[in-house]
Amino acid sequence: MSLSFFEMAAVGIAALSFFVAAYLYSWVAKCPCKNPEILRVGKLIRKGANTFLRKEYASLSKFILIAAALIFAFLPKPVLEGDITPNVIMTVSYIAGTLFSAISGKIGIAVATKANMKTAEAAKQGIRPAFMCGFRGGAVMGMAVVGSSLLGVALLYAYTGNTTALLGFSFGASSLALFAKAGGGIFTKTADISADLVGKVELGIPEDDPRNPAVIADNVGDNVGDVAGMGADLFDSNVASMAAALVIASGLDQACGTDFNVISVFCYAAAGLLASIIGVATAKIRKNGNPTTALNSSTYLTTVIFLVLTAGITALLDLEWRIWGASAIGLIVGVFIGIASDYFTDDRRKPVHNVAKASRSGPAFTILSGVSYGFISALPAMAGIGVSALAAYKLCEPLGEGYAMFGIAMAAVGMLSIVGMIISNDAYGPIVDNARGLAEMGGLGEDVIEITDSLDSAGNTVKAITKGFAIGAAGLTVISLLGAFISEVNTAARSLGLPQISGFDIQDPLTFFGMLAGAAVPAVFSAMLMLGVDRNAQRMVAEIHRQFRTIAGLREGRPGAKPEYDKCIEIATKGALSELIPAGLFAIAATLATGFIGGVNAIGGFLCGNIVSGLLISLFMSNAGGLWDNAKKYIEAGAEGGKNSDAHRAAVVGDTVGDPFKDTAGPSINTQITVVSLIASLLSTVFLTMSIF
Amino acid sequence: MSLSFFEMAAVGIAALSFFVAAYLYSWVAKCPCKNPEILRVGKLIRKGANTFLRKEYASLSKFILIAAALIFAFLPKPVLEGDITPNVIMTVSYIAGTLFSAISGKIGIAVATKANMKTAEAAKQGIRPAFMCGFRGGAVMGMAVVGSSLLGVALLYAYTGNTTALLGFSFGASSLALFAKAGGGIFTKTADISADLVGKVELGIPEDDPRNPAVIADNVGDNVGDVAGMGADLFDSNVASMAAALVIASGLDQACGTDFNVISVFCYAAAGLLASIIGVATAKIRKNGNPTTALNSSTYLTTVIFLVLTAGITALLDLEWRIWGASAIGLIVGVFIGIASDYFTDDRRKPVHNVAKASRSGPAFTILSGVSYGFISALPAMAGIGVSALAAYKLCEPLGEGYAMFGIAMAAVGMLSIVGMIISNDAYGPIVDNARGLAEMGGLGEDVIEITDSLDSAGNTVKAITKGFAIGAAGLTVISLLGAFISEVNTAARSLGLPQISGFDIQDPLTFFGMLAGAAVPAVFSAMLMLGVDRNAQRMVAEIHRQFRTIAGLREGRPGAKPEYDKCIEIATKGALSELIPAGLFAIAATLATGFIGGVNAIGGFLCGNIVSGLLISLFMSNAGGLWDNAKKYIEAGAEGGKNSDAHRAAVVGDTVGDPFKDTAGPSINTQITVVSLIASLLSTVFLTMSIF
Repeated sequence: MSLSFFEMAAVGIAALSFFVAAYLYSWVAKCPCKNPEILRVGKLIRKGANTFLRKEYASLSKFILIAAALIFAFLPKPVLEGDITPNVIMTVSYIAGTLFSAISGKIGIAVATKANMKTAEAAKQGIRPAFMCGFRGGAVMGMAVVGSSLLGVALLYAYTGNTTALLGFSFGASSLALFAKAGGGIFTKTADISADLVGKVELGIPEDDPRNPAVIADNVGDNVGDVAGMGADLFDSNVASMAAALVIASGLDQACGTDFNVISVFCYAAAGLLASIIGVATAKIRKNGNPTTALNSSTYLTTVIFLVLTAGITALLDLEWRIWGASAIGLIVGVFIGIASDYFTDDRRKPVHNVAKASRSGPAFTILSGVSYGFISALPAMAGIGVSALAAYKLCEPLGEGYAMFGIAMAAVGMLSIVGMIISNDAYGPIVDNARGLAEMGGLGEDVIEITDSLDSAGNTVKAITKGFAIGAAGLTVISLLGAFISEVNTAARSLGLPQISGFDIQDPLTFFGMLAGAAVPAVFSAMLMLGVDRNAQRMVAEIHRQFRTIAGLREGRPGAKPEYDKCIEIATKGALSELIPAGLFAIAATLATGFIGGVNAIGGFLCGNIVSGLLISLFMSNAGGLWDNAKKYIEAGAEGGKNSDAHRAAVVGDTVGDPFKDTAGPSINTQITVVSLIASLLSTVFLTMSIF
Repeated sequence: MSLSFFEMAAVGIAALSFFVAAYLYSWVAKCPCKNPEILRVGKLIRKGANTFLRKEYASLSKFILIAAALIFAFLPKPVLEGDITPNVIMTVSYIAGTLFSAISGKIGIAVATKANMKTAEAAKQGIRPAFMCGFRGGAVMGMAVVGSSLLGVALLYAYTGNTTALLGFSFGASSLALFAKAGGGIFTKTADISADLVGKVELGIPEDDPRNPAVIADNVGDNVGDVAGMGADLFDSNVASMAAALVIASGLDQACGTDFNVISVFCYAAAGLLASIIGVATAKIRKNGNPTTALNSSTYLTTVIFLVLTAGITALLDLEWRIWGASAIGLIVGVFIGIASDYFTDDRRKPVHNVAKASRSGPAFTILSGVSYGFISALPAMAGIGVSALAAYKLCEPLGEGYAMFGIAMAAVGMLSIVGMIISNDAYGPIVDNARGLAEMGGLGEDVIEITDSLDSAGNTVKAITKGFAIGAAGLTVISLLGAFISEVNTAARSLGLPQISGFDIQDPLTFFGMLAGAAVPAVFSAMLMLGVDRNAQRMVAEIHRQFRTIAGLREGRPGAKPEYDKCIEIATKGALSELIPAGLFAIAATLATGFIGGVNAIGGFLCGNIVSGLLISLFMSNAGGLWDNAKKYIEAGAEGGKNSDAHRAAVVGDTVGDPFKDTAGPSINTQITVVSLIASLLSTVFLTMSIF
C-alpha cells in the first residue's frame, strides 16, 4: 500500500467526522425550545458572539494579510532570488491555516449558541436530556476542529509533499489562535469580572440576573473565549504536533527511502480521530447519573480505543512497536497530568480545603495559599513532561539516528490523539454555563437551575483535566518543534555551505542569553493580557454604573426598565481587540530581536527558555485559577461559614484574581509558545545569515 | 611579587574592615540612650533575637554535623579509597564556612539590637544623628560580612592551595544561608502579618502599639530576617562568586604556569572591600537632608572608587584590561538592575500609581495589577544578566581558551564588589524600622516618629535596589558555578578515564528532563516557605486572640495589663524552625534525585532550569512585594482616597500578600540556587559514575 492510500484514509476519516458533526448539529437543532424569554436572550447572545467574531476576524485579517505578504516576499527564500512557486505554496498554506482555524471557531459558535438554549429547555425534563444536548453541542466543535486539522494537513501534504508548507499551515493556525485565544480571553473575563463586581459584590443581585447590563456580555464571553478561543488553541496544538512529526518523519523516510514513518503519523492521527468519534457517539449518562462521571468515562474509553486501534494497525502493517510505545507514553502521561491538575483543583481534596480554610483569615491568605498550591502544581506536570520526553526518546533511540526525536514527536501526537474528545468536553462547559444563565433569565425555576448548576460544575471539573492535557501536549509538541527547528537550520546551512549544528550548548553565552530572554517572554506576555483585562474591566464597570444611575427603575427591576446590553458588549469587543494586539506583537518582536541579535544559537536558547518558563507559568495560572474558583464554590456549598461569610468574601477575591489567570493568561501561553517556535523554524535561514553575533 | 603577597594583602584589607567594624560598633555603643521604656523594650527585642538565633543554630548544627560526616565519608573521594587528608580539609572547610557565616549573623544581631535603641533616642536630636546611628550600625554588619568572607577565602586558599576546598567552604556558607534566610524569613513574616492582621485590621490600633502581644516578635523578626538572614545570604553570594572565580582562575593559571588570574581575583575582591570601607567611612547626611539621597550617593561613590582602584591596579600590575572590563560590566549592569527594580517599586512611578488606582475596584485588582507588573519587572533584569554574561564572555574570549567563562565569573565578582556597601544599606533598614517601633512604644511623640518614618521609608527604597543587586549577582555567580561544575566534572572524568564533557545540549533528553525538573524547584521551594508562613501566622493569630480574650484590660490599655510577648516569640521561633527544614531538604533531595536518575547531563540541565526559573520567580516576587508595600504607603500618604478608604483596605491585602513574597520566598531563592549549584559541583564524581541513565 502506498502513502497516498493512507493520506486518503486520513481524509476519509476526517470526512466521517464532518458527517458526525453534521448529524449531531441537526440533532441539537431539532431539540425543542419554545420559551420566548430564552429565545429572546439566546438571540442576543448569538448576535453578540457573531458580532465579536466578525469584528475580530476583520481586525485580524489585516494582520494576516501583512504577514502573508511578508511570507510571500521572504519565505522559504526571498522571492526575488529565484522560483516563485515555493513562496506561493507557503503563502497559500499560511492563509489556509488561518482560514481553517477561523472556520472551526465559527462552527463552534454556531452550534454553541443554539445548544445553550436547547440545554436550558431540556433541563426541564431532567439531567439526562440536558446533558446529552450540552455534550452533543460540544461534540460538534470537537469533530469540526479535529476533522479540519487532519483534513488540512493531509490534503496539504498530499498536494505539495512539502513539509515546510506544513509549518506554514501550522503557523497560520497558530497566529490566528494567538490572537483569538487572547482576544476571546480578554473579552470573556472583562465581562465576567465586571458583571460580578457590580452585580454580586456591590448590589447583591444574583449571578445572571437580567437587570445586570453586563449579563449578556458575560454569556457572549463564554462562547467567544471558551468555545472559539479554546477551539483555535487546540486546533493549533493539534496541527503543530502533526506538522512537527511529519517534518521529522519525512526526513527519516527520505534518508532510508521508505514511507513508513509518514504513514505512521497519518495512521496514528486518524486512529485518534476515529477513537474520538466512537467515544463521542457512545457517550451517555444514566438516568440521574453524575455528569462528571459520564464525561470522564467517555474520555477513558476513547483512550483505550486509541491504544487498541493503534496496536492493531501496528501489528497489521508491521509498523514499529517502539513508535507505538512512544505514543502510548504520551497519552498516558497526558492522563496523569490531567489527574494531577484535577487533584489541585478538586473540591474534595486538600488544596481546595486548605485554601477555603485560609480564607477565614482574609483575602490575603486566600491569595497566598492559592499561589503556593499553584506553584506546587507545576511540579508533577513538568516532571511528567520531562519523563515522557525522556522515555519516548530512549525507547525510540535504538531505531536509528533521528528516531529519538521522532519518538518525542509521536508522544505529542499520542497525547493529542484524543483531542476530539477533549474539545467536546471543553466546549460542553460554556454551553451548560450559558444554559444556566438562560434558565435564570427565562425564569425556569429553582429545580431547573439546580440541574444546570450540576451540569456546570461537571464542566468546571473536567476543564481542569483538559487544560492539563492541552498544556502537556503543547510542551511535548514544542520539544519536537525544537527538533524541527534544528532540522530546518541544518537544511538551510547545507544549502548555504555553512557548518551543521548538532545542538545548543547551555554554556554558549548566546544560547544562555536567549534562554533568559525567552524565559521572560511568557511572564510579560501574560502580564500584558492581565493588564488588558484590568483596564477593560474598569471601563465596563464605569458603563454599568452609568446605566444603573441613568436608567430609571433598572435597579428595582421595574418592568420596562431594560438595560442596554449592547453597550457592554461593544466595550468588551472594542477593548479586547485593542488589547490583544500588543501582547501578541511583543512575543513576535522579542523572537525577532533575539534572532537578529544572537542568531540561531540564541534562538535555540530562546525557545528552550520559553518552553520551560511558559509551562511553569501556564500550569501555575491555570491550576491556581481553577483552585480559587472551586474553593469559592466549596464555601458556597456550606463550608467554612458558607455564603456571605468572611471566608466567602475572601474566596470571591481569589476567584476574581483567578479568572484572568485561568481563562485569559494561562491558556494563551500555549499558543504563544507554539507561535514563537514556528517563527523560529520558518526564519531559520534569515537568522542563520543575518545576525549581529 | 608572588601570589602569597596578594593573599596577605587581601587578609590585611579584611583585617582593616574588622577594625572599621569595631570602631563603628564602639561609636554606636557610645551613643546615649536613657529612656527607660526604650531600654526595657529594646532588651526584650535583643533577648528574643538572641533566643531565636541560639535555637536556630542549635537546630541547624545537627544538620551541619550530619552533612559534615557525609562530606568526610565521601568528598572529594570516598574516604575508604585512600588518603584521608583531602577529606579532612574538605570537612574543615565546610564547617569553617558555616561558622564564619553564623558569626557574621551573630555580630549583625549584636549591633542591630543596640543601634535600634540609640537611633530612636538620637531621633530626638533630629534626622542627622539618627541617620548616622542607623547607618553606622548597619555598616558594622557590612564590614563584618565582607571582611570575614574575604578572610576565609584568602586564608583557606593560602593554606590549602586547593580550589575544591573553596567549594566546600562556599557550600558551608550556602547551607547555613539556605536555612538562616528561610527560617528568618518565616519568623519575620509570621510576626509581621499576625501583628498587622489582629492589630491594624481587626482592632484598629496603630502599628507598634505596645498592647499588641506580637509587637516585640515583629521587631525581633526584622532583626533575624533582615539582618541575620540577609547577611547570611550575601555572605554566601560573595563567597560563591569568589570561589567560582578562583576555581576557574587557578585552572587557567595551572595551564600556563602563571599566578596572574588568581592574583586578579584577590585584587578585585580586596579593592571592592576597600572601596566599601571608604564609602562607609565617608557616608554622611546634610542637616535635614534626604536619607535616600545619602544612601544612594554613598553607593554610587563606592562604585566609582572601585572602578578607579581596579583600573589603577590593572595598570600598575599590568593585568588584563579585558578582565577589568568584565568586572566593570558586571558592576554597571548591577546598578542598572537596581534602577530597574526601583522603577517598578518607586512611589513616584507609573506602576505604583496604577496599582493604587486599580485598588479602588477592590483587592482582586490590587493583586492582578501587582502580579502583572511583577512579571514585567523580570524582563529588564533578566535581559541585563543575559547581556552582561554575553558581553563579559565575548570581551574575554580573545584572551584564550577558558577565559570567556572567567570573564563571566569576574563580572559576578565585579557586581558583588561593592557588597560591603550594599549590606550596610540593607541592614540600616531593619535598624531604623525597629527604631520607629521603639519610638512609638517609648512614647517619644509624633515629631520623633515622623523622623524615624522618613528614615524607614528611605530604607525601603534602597532595599529594592539592593535586592536587584543581590539577585543579579546570584544569577551571574551561578552561571560561573555552572562553569566550575563542568571543570569539576572533567577533572573527575579524566581521573576515571571517562570522556570529557564539552557542554550540555538542550536537545539531549536527559538535559531537557533536568531542565524541566530544575525549573519547577524554585516554584515549589518558595511555595513551601509561603505555606509555612501561612500556617505559622494562623497559629500566632490564634494566640493573639487568646491573649486579648483572657488578659483583662489589655484591649483598653489599662496600666498593668501586660501582654505576654514571650508566647508570640516562642510560636514564631518554633514554627520557623519546623517549617524551614522541609523546603531546604526538598531542594537538596530534588538535586540528588535528578543526579542519580540522569547523571551529569541531567544535572547540567537542572542547574540551568533552576537558574532561569529561580531568577524569574525571585525577581517577580521581590518586585511585586515591594510594589504592593509602596502602593499601600502611597495611598496612606493621601492618594486614591487615603487612609481607611476602600482603596487602602485593598492595598493592605496586597501588602500582606507581598510580605512573604518579598521577605521570605523571593530572597530565599538566591540561596536555593547557590546551594543546588554547589551540591552539583561537589558531587560531580558521584553523578558521573552512579546514575540510572
